[in-house]
Amino acid sequence: MTSETAFIEALRVLASHEAARGLADDAAVLEIGGVSLVLTSDTIVAGVHFLATDPPEDIGWKLAAVNLSDLAAKGARPLACLMNYALTGDKGWDERFLSGLKEVLDSYAMPLLGGDTVALPKGAPGVFTLTAIGEGPACGVPSRAGACAGDILCVTGSIGDAGLGLDLARRGMSEPAVCLRAYRRPKPLIAEGQALAPLVHAMMDVSDGVLIDAARMASASGLNVEIALDKLPLSPEVCASGPDELAVRLAAATAGDDYQLLFALPSGTLLPAGGHVIGRFTEGQGLSLLNRGACVPLPSKLGYLHC
Amino acid sequence: MTSETAFIEALRVLASHEAARGLADDAAVLEIGGVSLVLTSDTIVAGVHFLATDPPEDIGWKLAAVNLSDLAAKGARPLACLMNYALTGDKGWDERFLSGLKEVLDSYAMPLLGGDTVALPKGAPGVFTLTAIGEGPACGVPSRAGACAGDILCVTGSIGDAGLGLDLARRGMSEPAVCLRAYRRPKPLIAEGQALAPLVHAMMDVSDGVLIDAARMASASGLNVEIALDKLPLSPEVCASGPDELAVRLAAATAGDDYQLLFALPSGTLLPAGGHVIGRFTEGQGLSLLNRGACVPLPSKLGYLHC
Repeated sequence: MTSETAFIEALRVLASHEAARGLADDAAVLEIGGVSLVLTSDTIVAGVHFLATDPPEDIGWKLAAVNLSDLAAKGARPLACLMNYALTGDKGWDERFLSGLKEVLDSYAMPLLGGDTVALPKGAPGVFTLTAIGEGPACGVPSRAGACAGDILCVTGSIGDAGLGLDLARRGMSEPAVCLRAYRRPKPLIAEGQALAPLVHAMMDVSDGVLIDAARMASASGLNVEIALDKLPLSPEVCASGPDELAVRLAAATAGDDYQLLFALPSGTLLPAGGHVIGRFTEGQGLSLLNRGACVPLPSKLGYLHC
Repeated sequence: MTSETAFIEALRVLASHEAARGLADDAAVLEIGGVSLVLTSDTIVAGVHFLATDPPEDIGWKLAAVNLSDLAAKGARPLACLMNYALTGDKGWDERFLSGLKEVLDSYAMPLLGGDTVALPKGAPGVFTLTAIGEGPACGVPSRAGACAGDILCVTGSIGDAGLGLDLARRGMSEPAVCLRAYRRPKPLIAEGQALAPLVHAMMDVSDGVLIDAARMASASGLNVEIALDKLPLSPEVCASGPDELAVRLAAATAGDDYQLLFALPSGTLLPAGGHVIGRFTEGQGLSLLNRGACVPLPSKLGYLHC
């Protein structure tokens, strides 16, 4: 057990309240005053969650977007957020960060209500936290754990663009711009999450990669999930990113930062517009992969692993 | 204008929702489902908000305590919190931090519901954030801005112990233990805040020093505040900390980390048990100091200034 895993296990013991959902969901869900409050908080660190060379506007956007995506995954409406900002010492950088943050907050009508501003010792990496609060849907807040055997596994849109974008950014390349944009300016699917919430048995966002995230949904639901790699919706840019189709599909399925919604739908439900069926849940446990009907061995890395 | 001040001014423009209270209160207050949600988030950084040599249990305690104190200042009942933890790479340290955190969460019945755990690049200072959510009192959530001319200024308990404690800790001294404890294990005054909320015109916690915090309350209320240094409740340890009584009183009044409650009470109100009258609000603006009836010039530093 790594020290990270040990720490999270210790946290789980501490977080025994049912609203914490065992620290195994995208967000906590606290019932108060007849409202389901959906609570999530993400920290991003320079050199870990973003590149120090990423444009500051995009980092400001992304900080709120990753939290909004957690609200989307629970079908929640954004209510408010708090930000904890470590001043960089570069006034222009800080201003550009705020302008990107303002764009995303305005786009998703999520007011900033407070937080904290701190100075870090010289040379410390940028550390930014945002805590988002949403109002869950009246139909109940979907969890990761509700999938049933026979459910189909679906995803809202194309997979792997952001992973390719991160790769381009690391190499200092600026094309295809659509992939860089997918990495730097993910679009939280708030409206889609609200529309899906009443239909799904389980829902989460794809933050670490389709394979690892689907495996987490299956594990939380006590099931096996079978994914058809050839059914993954891929953009023309991702399709063109390598000569070996299976390798391209595996790379897309194990890349992080997509922020699409992944959901389990009762078999026979009319597929919502924009949804793509990519697999199904079966009795058992684990993850199995197919490509054009043939079994594919699991790759050694199912997704982006962090603590 | 420092870059910090400029940043906070820019944040204020962004945080225009009335629930943000102009970023000029201890917490935001969001009305939802007939409940006043009180929202606060503080980040503490090694070498800035705590000493790297402080015992990790105490740092865990303090992270939650400073946020609980903001809830106390608004008369709120703790509902939940989220923590964002930067792993230190030292498993034993992390465990000790969690044990102190558990103590304070258990003491104040504030469940931990989620948050985030991140790894920082090697050598980065410890950065820990906690976001607390409380339920405000039905009588309305007191702000800093409600004091009226003629109100008396009161404080819940002794001032300056934590400041002396910090000084002792910096010098590696362990006595008087009561002061070190005041610095390392502040007690959020949740019950006191709830009892005071229906009585006060304004309330806040003393986090940066009585003088600077009282000046902030006066400024938010559009008034002048007059403080009688000789009325400040001081512990025997603080009284004995120097030969010059006025210097000792000024040091206590400008030291941070007390986490007492500071409140404006309508003149003629029966003073609540444990309360100490230390001044009064008058028409005008600013802060004036008296000691045994004689005017005292303002010290160059009114309190702990950070961003």
